[in-house]
Amino acid sequence: MNLDPSSALVLFSGGQDSTTCLAWALSRYRRVETIGFAYGQRHAVEMEVREPVRRGLGALSADWAARLGPDRVVPLDVLGEVSVSALTADLPLGTRPDGLPSTFVPGRNLVFLTFAAIVANQRRLKHVVAGVCETDFSGYPDCRDDTVKALQVALNLGLEARLALQTPLMWIDKAETWALARTLGGDGLVDLIVERTHTCYLGDRSRRHDWGVGCGACDACRLRAAGWQRYRAGT
Amino acid sequence: MNLDPSSALVLFSGGQDSTTCLAWALSRYRRVETIGFAYGQRHAVEMEVREPVRRGLGALSADWAARLGPDRVVPLDVLGEVSVSALTADLPLGTRPDGLPSTFVPGRNLVFLTFAAIVANQRRLKHVVAGVCETDFSGYPDCRDDTVKALQVALNLGLEARLALQTPLMWIDKAETWALARTLGGDGLVDLIVERTHTCYLGDRSRRHDWGVGCGACDACRLRAAGWQRYRAGT
Repeated sequence: MNLDPSSALVLFSGGQDSTTCLAWALSRYRRVETIGFAYGQRHAVEMEVREPVRRGLGALSADWAARLGPDRVVPLDVLGEVSVSALTADLPLGTRPDGLPSTFVPGRNLVFLTFAAIVANQRRLKHVVAGVCETDFSGYPDCRDDTVKALQVALNLGLEARLALQTPLMWIDKAETWALARTLGGDGLVDLIVERTHTCYLGDRSRRHDWGVGCGACDACRLRAAGWQRYRAGT
Repeated sequence: MNLDPSSALVLFSGGQDSTTCLAWALSRYRRVETIGFAYGQRHAVEMEVREPVRRGLGALSADWAARLGPDRVVPLDVLGEVSVSALTADLPLGTRPDGLPSTFVPGRNLVFLTFAAIVANQRRLKHVVAGVCETDFSGYPDCRDDTVKALQVALNLGLEARLALQTPLMWIDKAETWALARTLGGDGLVDLIVERTHTCYLGDRSRRHDWGVGCGACDACRLRAAGWQRYRAGT
């Protein structure tokens, strides 16, 4: 089963990180498709920003518009059923007794990457791009570089494939992610990410800030805001 | 997160192989739970034989009855959606152009083992037992020993766990699987497997043979029947 070496499937949630990854893939591969996962998360608003963000990227560049292929959303409510966490149930946000954040859905990225690999292989897309990151990794063990690299081997053996899991944000922090967006798509892309993408754990789209829209108080908002301040201080 | 070293989660489909694995686990661990996956397969009859087979195992041994914990079935219809194959769609049985059997759901066992690992970790069950097998592996790359061992590493990294994936049938053929069942549970277990378990790809429960119930003509029936003949010739 030959994979097209200039093609990619991007795990796209509509957040800052995955939007930056999508722009990264559009700058690099000739055929780029997107995949998302609906799993009963409290911030289902992420699903609503997907299409506006994709359209916004196409509007920034005729090349990107030509390269951007179909989107698909895989229903994974079952993940919320087997994997209890603050993102899918009414648990308080904070830290669990074992030190992991309560928003952690154990194994979530393992499941996402596995389904993405199955779809990529069917679609003959060689590169699977995910916005996972060790730097701000919030204690999620399935975002670690070791996990992703071991998983690539397991997936390729299990699918008899030669997929490549690409993680362009693995070693950069949130300030550098803003800078990467600017390099890839200029201030137009930075503005698109500020205005359209969604990161807030609480799903708040009512409060506007210079770094984006969100409650401003949850861990995800604070991380995004802090990265923005450092990015702005450096530019 | 401490896992109980004398506990196991068995991937249990109600077929010959996973029933033998369940007996193997009940002979070895003090606490044994089962998990199954419903994914719109044509042989949904597998789901109907689960509980009778579990009850039958408990009836064979008071020890086994005491060790056998809860069963759960995870709905994975999404697998049938992302992964088109003869088991989930109206495709002809046979061989695909790439040499893999048309019953192959690419990545199926990767998904099953990943969800099983997530559940096992939550339930503090250390051993995840699967009836995958290289000997009769029918060309399924995700049943290979290399795949399972690489996946164990990826899952443990991603879950920050020390689960062990156990594959007691990996290097034995169908005749030896019958012999293993006899060693574990005598003729009572062999009779239970013959009468209650389901293997037939077509879901046929109307035709009885000395080796079990099924159409007798599909690949799964023929493999089971051939193993039975060799087992009977050797005993």
